[in-house]
Amino acid sequence: MLPSEVKEYLETHRQEHLERLCTLLRFPSISSQSNHDVDCLSCAEYILDHLRRLGFSARLEPWKRHPMIIARSSGDIAPADAPTLLVYAHYDVQPPDPVELWTNPPFEPTIRDGAVYARGAADDKGLLLTTVHAAEAFIRTIGKLPLNILFFFEGDEETGSPDLEEFISRFADDLRADFALVVDLGFFAPNVPSVIIGLRGLIYLEMKIDGPAHDLHSGEHGGAVVNPINALAKIIAQMHDEQGRVTLPGFYDDVAEPSQQELTDWQRLPFSEEEYAKKVGVEPVGGEKDRTLLERIWSRPTLDCNGIIGGYYGPGAKTVLPAWASTKISMRLVPNQLPEKVIEAFNQFVASHCPEGVKASVNVISQSRPLLISPDSAAVDVVRRSLQEAFSAQPVLTRAGGSVPVAEMIQRILKIEPVVTGFMLPDNNIHAPDEHFQLEQYYKGTVAMAAMFQNFSQL
Amino acid sequence: MLPSEVKEYLETHRQEHLERLCTLLRFPSISSQSNHDVDCLSCAEYILDHLRRLGFSARLEPWKRHPMIIARSSGDIAPADAPTLLVYAHYDVQPPDPVELWTNPPFEPTIRDGAVYARGAADDKGLLLTTVHAAEAFIRTIGKLPLNILFFFEGDEETGSPDLEEFISRFADDLRADFALVVDLGFFAPNVPSVIIGLRGLIYLEMKIDGPAHDLHSGEHGGAVVNPINALAKIIAQMHDEQGRVTLPGFYDDVAEPSQQELTDWQRLPFSEEEYAKKVGVEPVGGEKDRTLLERIWSRPTLDCNGIIGGYYGPGAKTVLPAWASTKISMRLVPNQLPEKVIEAFNQFVASHCPEGVKASVNVISQSRPLLISPDSAAVDVVRRSLQEAFSAQPVLTRAGGSVPVAEMIQRILKIEPVVTGFMLPDNNIHAPDEHFQLEQYYKGTVAMAAMFQNFSQL
Repeated sequence: MLPSEVKEYLETHRQEHLERLCTLLRFPSISSQSNHDVDCLSCAEYILDHLRRLGFSARLEPWKRHPMIIARSSGDIAPADAPTLLVYAHYDVQPPDPVELWTNPPFEPTIRDGAVYARGAADDKGLLLTTVHAAEAFIRTIGKLPLNILFFFEGDEETGSPDLEEFISRFADDLRADFALVVDLGFFAPNVPSVIIGLRGLIYLEMKIDGPAHDLHSGEHGGAVVNPINALAKIIAQMHDEQGRVTLPGFYDDVAEPSQQELTDWQRLPFSEEEYAKKVGVEPVGGEKDRTLLERIWSRPTLDCNGIIGGYYGPGAKTVLPAWASTKISMRLVPNQLPEKVIEAFNQFVASHCPEGVKASVNVISQSRPLLISPDSAAVDVVRRSLQEAFSAQPVLTRAGGSVPVAEMIQRILKIEPVVTGFMLPDNNIHAPDEHFQLEQYYKGTVAMAAMFQNFSQL
Repeated sequence: MLPSEVKEYLETHRQEHLERLCTLLRFPSISSQSNHDVDCLSCAEYILDHLRRLGFSARLEPWKRHPMIIARSSGDIAPADAPTLLVYAHYDVQPPDPVELWTNPPFEPTIRDGAVYARGAADDKGLLLTTVHAAEAFIRTIGKLPLNILFFFEGDEETGSPDLEEFISRFADDLRADFALVVDLGFFAPNVPSVIIGLRGLIYLEMKIDGPAHDLHSGEHGGAVVNPINALAKIIAQMHDEQGRVTLPGFYDDVAEPSQQELTDWQRLPFSEEEYAKKVGVEPVGGEKDRTLLERIWSRPTLDCNGIIGGYYGPGAKTVLPAWASTKISMRLVPNQLPEKVIEAFNQFVASHCPEGVKASVNVISQSRPLLISPDSAAVDVVRRSLQEAFSAQPVLTRAGGSVPVAEMIQRILKIEPVVTGFMLPDNNIHAPDEHFQLEQYYKGTVAMAAMFQNFSQL
């Protein structure tokens, strides 16, 4: 149980903690856009400064694109002979596009309807601060943490953590710990906290089709040369068959089916396709036709275009055969698919399906492996109990369709079985306009995190 | 033969006429972008002003989007009892995108290598001024035109002349004439002047696919909903078969084959696929596999994507299932296809090929019919002779793959068989970056135009 002074501290500091979140949200720490590099750095420095004030031995570790934050409890705040809990979150955010669909500017946090609206409010700055404030509550009341904490905050999660594996391998010593919490993602439904035992991996790549040396008049040349947009569309179209299955060679070869127990558990979850359809505004009829919706999101791999561009797309007409067209594609991988094998299959597919008269090139931006952890560990149990304590609700074990590359790397490289949890709600519009985070969820998330620190210390 | 004083005037006023072209090119009269409406108007007023100074009874006729210029010779400059020649050109231009590929800013005309570089230099401001300066040469020397001239200059050609048919019908009386010259397009090859007896029609439309109510996270939702980009690609891909034929129902039903004479003439033209490939930077293997390149461009209909957009296309990664995706499509029509019939087939195709889970909408931006005129008329002969006189080269009869909607409307509504000609060269990069027009071509074009005025007067 959480000491009462810690609980009280969190209650009486709600306003201050909200203000700190708003400050953090004002940094446009968009990791994918290099013109925001300085904002990423400022954001990291702001967090670093607060951790140092709390007594952490904290540093920014400069890395390929954006610095990592590594902060270990030491000195007065660190308990002797206690185990160490690695706590991961990320301080970078997605681009806010399309900006015009936001109610408030995405980097001017605005409170309305009991929530704070801004890019990163939920994913992942809000969650990151729950972990910091939980530690703060112990330090400012009891004067000491219940166990050693190693904060590991990343600045390149939203670009797919392209260089994280190298970092973790190189700094494995600095990251040694007994347990690991990955604090990203969130509830299965409002009032249904979740421990996530499976995550999909991700391959993110760009495919470009090059045609004529320059844009051509579509009248003068239409019918003569292969149109890069039409060619791109043709290649994309062939990547799925009529059953919604991905046609890359061997794509499903290594896909593991979920256990019967998991499938049964999923059927019991409070989930309605009608509710889902209402939320996304469209019938959920994508993906493989012979799988349930939760299977399609959690345990089946996918291939989706994330963006496409080519030719003229301004107002009105421009009759042009464009010189090139390009698409961004994300593939979500499930156990036991290997990214390198899928990338090879993708390249093979493109080479064999690219029409004569144009050239295709593929540029892999990032890749990460899927994760699956055992549902029966003591760590999973600690997280379940702590969530129940803070939210007075029965947590469920789920998977998630998204990717948090660090989790699988913690498992594989650091040899710690990570527990993935978080406090986002399904309606938080993460990666979309009007991202927001409920103030109540933010507050209770801090309480839950403090409970986890307490309960992990008693393992 | 052209009076010697007219010829001399054109020779001695080359610099002045070039300066007037540069002035005209500085107006960014982009008809498709409403923020340039005022530039279109200023450009029209500049031309109007010059025509009035020459003695034309000239007016701007306000119309749906951009004003038409109508100027009829009258008073001192008009010969009594002479026939009237309608002379069409257009003062609007294509958008300059992609601007970053221009060597000089597209609306800052720059002279280099014997050519003037700017958007509209060839298409169609350069050509428009050859007609005005030819008239000027007669007026400033002899004091009178050899025949009555009716200048009809459009400001919406580059958007596909969406309201031109209504205009010509309504102002048919103002546009009455005995002959008609459409001055757009150009030479078949350097030093090979061309009279164009066939033009393709055009349908320009946008197709939009709407999916989820807002952008979704591609991990959280990938596999659940139909992706609008993938759906759009699928629809586009099905619009051609493996032989490069368009699959819209009945698309080829009304297509007329060219005469055997025309096909034989085309084989004799100085045309090399190797040269063409070098010019466009790619093997010309688009379109229908069983047709020659000139057939594919001139006498076969096509369907091309002119632009595509959807989702995230900035630098790096954003894992998003976009709410929508959209494409701009141009179809080039040949005799005797009817735009309305093809549009119906397109709508039918989209309705039957749009995947469940997304919605397709089609917005027709413009449409125009194909043109075919008799190669044996006296008017065609006048234009051939005049081109030969000015350029000292044997003109050829060709078709063109592009569309100049006005020509067919002059034929159908005004009942005048138009002759289409012009002085652009194939390497002028019209509709593309670094559009330019050779100064020699500009000068000789003016001479040719003056010769046409003279020779038409003797019909």
